[in-house]
Amino acid sequence: MNSSRCAACKHLRRRCPSDCIFAPYFPSNNPRRFAYVHKIFGASNVGKILQDLPVSYRGEAANTLCYEAYCRIKDPVYGCAGIVDQLNEQLKVAEYQLATIKAAITTTLQPSYLLDQSLHML
Amino acid sequence: MNSSRCAACKHLRRRCPSDCIFAPYFPSNNPRRFAYVHKIFGASNVGKILQDLPVSYRGEAANTLCYEAYCRIKDPVYGCAGIVDQLNEQLKVAEYQLATIKAAITTTLQPSYLLDQSLHML
Repeated sequence: MNSSRCAACKHLRRRCPSDCIFAPYFPSNNPRRFAYVHKIFGASNVGKILQDLPVSYRGEAANTLCYEAYCRIKDPVYGCAGIVDQLNEQLKVAEYQLATIKAAITTTLQPSYLLDQSLHML
Repeated sequence: MNSSRCAACKHLRRRCPSDCIFAPYFPSNNPRRFAYVHKIFGASNVGKILQDLPVSYRGEAANTLCYEAYCRIKDPVYGCAGIVDQLNEQLKVAEYQLATIKAAITTTLQPSYLLDQSLHML
């Protein structure tokens, strides 16, 4: 056994090869990171996803897989899709408020309205 | 072999038991739905996630797993997390516009501003 095994190889109780697909993205000092993706996607699927990507994209892919796995562990029914739903709702509310306020401005800034308001002040 | 096997059991080339955990959520007329989750999560992980949930939540969980799997197949680097990022960005923009427009209104609707504008019109 290699004493400097990555978190994935430690978790899988195997030797960490020098060209380990997991090692650069799952360092041994953060074992939970691999435990999450292993529980949700399985080591083999994570390895396949990383292997199929150019090396420069693998770090981001490992990060987003961890994020998704964490979301699914936290919320086994909705996972990351629950966050997408919440954000879509918040965006709908913000866009509705924006549209309402813009429509109100269009009315309010009509010269006739401004004149009317100021005459009340005189 | 059962001739009315669900999409999961057909995909896994196995008999579909009467208490199949997949059957209610992966009907045989939509084989792609299972193919997606199988490719990304693996049949065993999907089965485990469904099994650990009360029956009433399993349908939603199967739907969100399909959604996540589809996102990851479409975008292997960012998956569903990419959509979360995009929505967060759009929300930030909408909230910034809303704050800006509210600040502008506070200034514009001051009596002094209204009076000034209307005097220009006279």
